[in-house]
This record gives sequence, C-alpha cells and structure tokens, in this order.
Amino acid sequence: MTKTNNYLIIDWGTTNFRAFLMNDKDSLIDSTQQNKGLLSVQDNQFAETLHSILSDWLNEFEHLPIYMAGMVGSLNGWVSLDYVETPAAPALIQQLSYQFITDWGAAACIFPGVKHVKDRTQADVMRGEELQVFGLAKLKLASNFIAILPGTHSKHISFEQDKIKSVKTFMTGELFSIITQHSLLGKNLPKQKASDAVFRQGVEQSQSGQLTNLLFLARTHLLFDNIADMHIEEFISGLLIGYELKGLTQSQITIVGGKGLCQRYLLACNLLGIAADYANGDDCFMAGMVQLINLKSGQ
Amino acid sequence: MTKTNNYLIIDWGTTNFRAFLMNDKDSLIDSTQQNKGLLSVQDNQFAETLHSILSDWLNEFEHLPIYMAGMVGSLNGWVSLDYVETPAAPALIQQLSYQFITDWGAAACIFPGVKHVKDRTQADVMRGEELQVFGLAKLKLASNFIAILPGTHSKHISFEQDKIKSVKTFMTGELFSIITQHSLLGKNLPKQKASDAVFRQGVEQSQSGQLTNLLFLARTHLLFDNIADMHIEEFISGLLIGYELKGLTQSQITIVGGKGLCQRYLLACNLLGIAADYANGDDCFMAGMVQLINLKSGQ
Repeated sequence: MTKTNNYLIIDWGTTNFRAFLMNDKDSLIDSTQQNKGLLSVQDNQFAETLHSILSDWLNEFEHLPIYMAGMVGSLNGWVSLDYVETPAAPALIQQLSYQFITDWGAAACIFPGVKHVKDRTQADVMRGEELQVFGLAKLKLASNFIAILPGTHSKHISFEQDKIKSVKTFMTGELFSIITQHSLLGKNLPKQKASDAVFRQGVEQSQSGQLTNLLFLARTHLLFDNIADMHIEEFISGLLIGYELKGLTQSQITIVGGKGLCQRYLLACNLLGIAADYANGDDCFMAGMVQLINLKSGQ
Repeated sequence: MTKTNNYLIIDWGTTNFRAFLMNDKDSLIDSTQQNKGLLSVQDNQFAETLHSILSDWLNEFEHLPIYMAGMVGSLNGWVSLDYVETPAAPALIQQLSYQFITDWGAAACIFPGVKHVKDRTQADVMRGEELQVFGLAKLKLASNFIAILPGTHSKHISFEQDKIKSVKTFMTGELFSIITQHSLLGKNLPKQKASDAVFRQGVEQSQSGQLTNLLFLARTHLLFDNIADMHIEEFISGLLIGYELKGLTQSQITIVGGKGLCQRYLLACNLLGIAADYANGDDCFMAGMVQLINLKSGQ
C-alpha cells in the first residue's frame, strides 16, 4: 500500500451523503452519492456508517484525511458544532472547525455551519451551503453576489466583500413534498407529467394574492378543468417557487445546485424578469472545500 | 305513531356529520355530532349510512323530512350538484336544490354550494358555509358584512345587499395539520401546551416577511431556545392565522364557528387592530336552513 496525498471531502446531510476523492492537485478522482443521510444512521453510529460506505466504495481509504460539512456537524449529527455568525469569512470557518481522529486512524475535520441573526429574536441558519457559496465565489472570481440554493430548505445567501453576509431559508421543497403527499391537493392524482406551461401558470399566479389562498386554486383549477389532473404538481411547484422568488429585491442572482431543480428556478426567474445564471452545486462544494483545506495547510 | 311536523337539518361535510331535530316552530329539539364525514362512507352507501346514524339517535325518524347541505352535494358526496354562482341569494339556492325521496320514504333535499369566479381563470368555492352566512344575516339583521369561517379550509365571505358576493378560501387549518404532523417543524416535539403569548408572537411575526421563510423560524426559535418546544404549535398556529388575516382590507368582521378555534381568530384580530365579533356556527347554520326551508314552503 502506497501512501498518497489524496483526500476525501464529504457533504453529509439529513437525507443525502456525497463524497469526493481528490488528488494532491485538488482535482477530482472519483465521487459517490448515496441516500445514506443522517436520518439513516442508527444509534449515533456515524463512524461505523462512514467506514461501511467508504469501504464499499474505495479499496484503500483508511489513511485518507477526511473533510466534512453539512448536518453532520449538528445536534443530530456526529458532533454538535456552534454556528459561526455572519459576516462569515472562510478563514473563520476553518479556524472553528472540529478536528479528530477516526476509529481507523484517519485525520478528520468537520466544518461548522453559519448563523445569521436578523434581530435579537430571529435567526436563520445553514450547514453545508456556506461551502458552496465560498466555492462559487472562487469559480466566479467574485466578491459580491446573491446565490439561491434550492432544495428541501431553499437558501438565499448574500455574499459581500468575500464574506457571507446573510442567509434566509424558505421551506419550499419540504412544503411541496408534504402538500402533494398529505393534503387534499395531492389526493387521487394520476401519475404526474411535466408541463412547463402549467409550471409557468403557477409562477404567474403566485405573484398576486396570498399563498395559503392561492394553493386552494390548485383544487378549483382541477374542479373546473382549467388544469389537467396530471399537471397539478407542476402548478403547485410554480406557486411555491414563484412565491419564494417574489420577495427578492435583487435583479441578478446565481442558482446553485443540481440541474433539474435549478432549471425550474431559472425558468421562474426568466418569467419574473430576474437575471439568473447557473452553477453546478458539486463543483461549488468542491471548490469551497478545497479553499478551506488549503487555508488550513497555510497555502 | 303520531305524525309530527318536526324535520331534520343536516350539515354533512368531509370529516364531520351534524344533525339537528327541529320542531314545527323552527326550534331545536335535539342535535347530534359525529365524526362520520363523507370520507367514512363506504362504496357510496350514503342512504345506508344516514339511516344507520339516524336510527341510532332517534326512535322515530322515518317520516321526517330531511334538509342537507355541505359536501354531501359534491362530486364525492351523495349527489353532485352544480355550484350557484355569486352573487348568490337564498332564494336561488333554494330553487336549485335537489329533491328526492329516501329509501325509507322520507322527503329529502340537498342545497347546492356557491362558486365565486374571480376572473376567467380563477374560481373559489364552498359547500355548507353559505348556509351559515345566510343565518348570520338573519341573526344580525344585517344585509352587508364580512364573515370568516375558520376551519380546515377557512372561508372569507363577503355578504352584500342580502347576497353572497364573494368567497375566498385559505388552507390554514389543513396546512397547520400537515406541517405539524409531517414536516421537520413537528418532529420530536413533546406534548403541546397552550400559550397565548407564543400564539401572539406567531401572529406578530406573520405580519412582515414571507410565510415559507417565517415557518422556518419555528425551527430556529427552537434551536436557540426563543420558544419552548411544548409551545411550537402555538407559534405555527399564530403564523398561519396571522398570515391569513394579513390580507384583510376590512376593519370589521364576524368570526363564525366553534368556540375554540374562533377564540384564536378573535385574539389575532384584537392584536392586529381588526374589530371582530363572534357568532356560534351551529346557530347560524340552523337559522340559514330555517330561512331556506321557509322560502320553500312559501312562508
């Protein structure tokens, strides 16, 4: 067994696990994505679970340093790390990282998340997305921008003077999921089919009126055949994403994440006259991690 | 068996069944409420179900005329009746009622619901609540008012010149239920306890910002101990009710329904500077039914 300077970076969230094997030039060698999020870890067996995932994926991994971010550093994760407060610079997150040695003897590190306190009684938080934003800054060569990271809990992050200035969370993805699975609106629907036109209809209608009233329209549109039953979820998706974007005061943003969901956001932005570009979430996460790791080694 | 001029009025909704036995002076003799809503009716056995409920409750009922309203007159009910369009007067609803004879030989009548078309592509609907509004008009001796009927689907109804002018539905109750049962916000909570103070906090915070972001605050308030975990549902309830009331342009309304839920709305109105009074939902329903029935017999 030859010792290499390869290393592992891992985004371990509530429902997903993504790992990237990097070489000593900070280039990607291989990656894996699995639905082994923290919810699937039994009895706090984080070390055992990680060891099992890695040994299934790589022949030799026990000597590789591991850098982690995401909900793995939360109350329900491997170790509970305090949030870093905004404005949050990469160097501060690196300084406050948690270092330890795994059961199998590898050096490991978990980076903390970020908290934004709006006033004394309101705070917003994230874990993992901050790495994507740091990476985006590197890839864009930009010091100031607004990024939206869609998902279960969509994050709107403002980056100013090379620091994370604020974060605002919208429960768009989770609400879509529980509304379509558990409310009257999702009842007795046939298999859903894609429709950009119906999605657009939802985005447009989301711009005037109140969300909890507008959602009921998904029901009446069905009753009166304005929307085919196989497209109702497109309408609900359009309403929720359009409503999320409604409060944006910026006219220029970057959407960061997986292609499918980000394309919905780009479509909605286009309709609403918001100039938006796209960046791949994995690329941003890797670039952010590489930056923090190199800060650590003093490069 | 002596034949009387007693009659039955019934509000048969999706989850609830309420019946009132009235005498020939239109006064209440007895009533029953059961969780035998339409969802509990197997294989469209509406007649069998009704017969079974009534025979458990009353000794003699087979000769009594029956007047029904609610979802019983919908696609998933006993018979699917077209909605009456706004502006909807009591006389029109009476004229368009569906008359039939039950298996056991009783005269029966189902009143249709009301549809409000906002523009060519948006409609809102109700079934049953229109009766409560007609009754409220009688009890208040009023021809013009705004009524809110809280519930799974909260209804805002404007009554003008003795007619229902418009209806607007908010999915407040259903969203509260699915959010607390199925989202992250409801996870691992202890048994919930009442707290007017936390409810008020939710109502206040609902007035600025976007609902899908504000809901996430229920999570961070818990994380940072701003709200005790046994009061989180009060906060979510305050957010949703406050958000529903936020769009009201009227400064004077009547809240109609059961006492418990209506008290929440009254508290929220009080906090938001909306003058609100209360009317019992059953009383309004009975008064509305009596009016329609007497129109029928030409009194």
